[in-house]
Amino acid sequence: MGAAAMSFQPETLEIQLPGWLEDFLLERATCIPQPDDRMSLVVEAARLNVSQGTGGPFAAAVFESGSGKLVSLGVNLVVSGGLSMLHAEMVALALAQMKTGGYDLGRRGLPAHELVASTEPCAMCFGAIPWSGVRRVITGARDSDARSIGFDEGPKMKGWRSELEKRGIATLCDVGREAAAQVLLEYSRQGGKIYNSREP
Amino acid sequence: MGAAAMSFQPETLEIQLPGWLEDFLLERATCIPQPDDRMSLVVEAARLNVSQGTGGPFAAAVFESGSGKLVSLGVNLVVSGGLSMLHAEMVALALAQMKTGGYDLGRRGLPAHELVASTEPCAMCFGAIPWSGVRRVITGARDSDARSIGFDEGPKMKGWRSELEKRGIATLCDVGREAAAQVLLEYSRQGGKIYNSREP
Repeated sequence: MGAAAMSFQPETLEIQLPGWLEDFLLERATCIPQPDDRMSLVVEAARLNVSQGTGGPFAAAVFESGSGKLVSLGVNLVVSGGLSMLHAEMVALALAQMKTGGYDLGRRGLPAHELVASTEPCAMCFGAIPWSGVRRVITGARDSDARSIGFDEGPKMKGWRSELEKRGIATLCDVGREAAAQVLLEYSRQGGKIYNSREP
Repeated sequence: MGAAAMSFQPETLEIQLPGWLEDFLLERATCIPQPDDRMSLVVEAARLNVSQGTGGPFAAAVFESGSGKLVSLGVNLVVSGGLSMLHAEMVALALAQMKTGGYDLGRRGLPAHELVASTEPCAMCFGAIPWSGVRRVITGARDSDARSIGFDEGPKMKGWRSELEKRGIATLCDVGREAAAQVLLEYSRQGGKIYNSREP
């Protein structure tokens, strides 16, 4: 039995991103001035995550709000990564924080950042947003669109937008909703896995 | 300029755990029958995370509920890891999922798992719990203990316990509260960094 077999738990938590993501990014503009064009990129990534078989029908990106510079792009990796926290928003926020070198995207000296998510955030991602330092959240499909194909958004406050706004985080919803909801529907039609919390 | 410099974002998200964690675990019992003893181990890890300078005064572990087998131990790594999602609960849940080989600790064929957290979960970790598959959550210090030293628990539902219970996740609070709250107080007295969401 080698030393590795003796260890209680890994010393690193390593999360592999899908190989296609880098190619996708290299073919795209890195600066996108309009919010609806930012959403189009995110929805395209959600669609690819489904067609490439790398995860659920969700994607999210972090942009610099003013310039529209793309900072990071994440996709849902719950099933492929084997970790329930790997919602697209969490992946995008973590990648953006790695790139900017710190846990707070709102810290002094950085331009304002925003999260663009193909679907409204679930309870976990909603709770993660205030810690991330983003100043704006832009969403595509609604909670109800996700629920309509069987996904559960978790125990999220009804007044989630005003809770974010109280904390200085603006929200802009229903941006490209139809295209974003279409990806959810396609996923459902293909028999994509719907994973949720345990039933009581 | 090499190929690495061309890449838009990393292809892996790598999170390093503190070196002392493995030694700590190797010295501890791996099966702990009583819930308050499970909490004692978690509180000790929170205290060490502070004294070793590796993060905030929070720790969490996943146990098999029935046998008390320790599955994973996480600590808060927000500042040292540079990622706002690295609350102790998220780290512990992710490590447990890696160890059991899947995103759902509640899946058929696995014994019931529980999360033991030195402080009540923040809004993000609360939202993460239903996705993780744990069947019980045991907490030490209260939200109010964390708030009393300046930490913000985020926009969390007042009825968070009943929301979990509705989803078949039992809660057991105030277990070893005094010792857990003491670690928060020590951290505060030492001038430990209090990081929160942005002010509006």
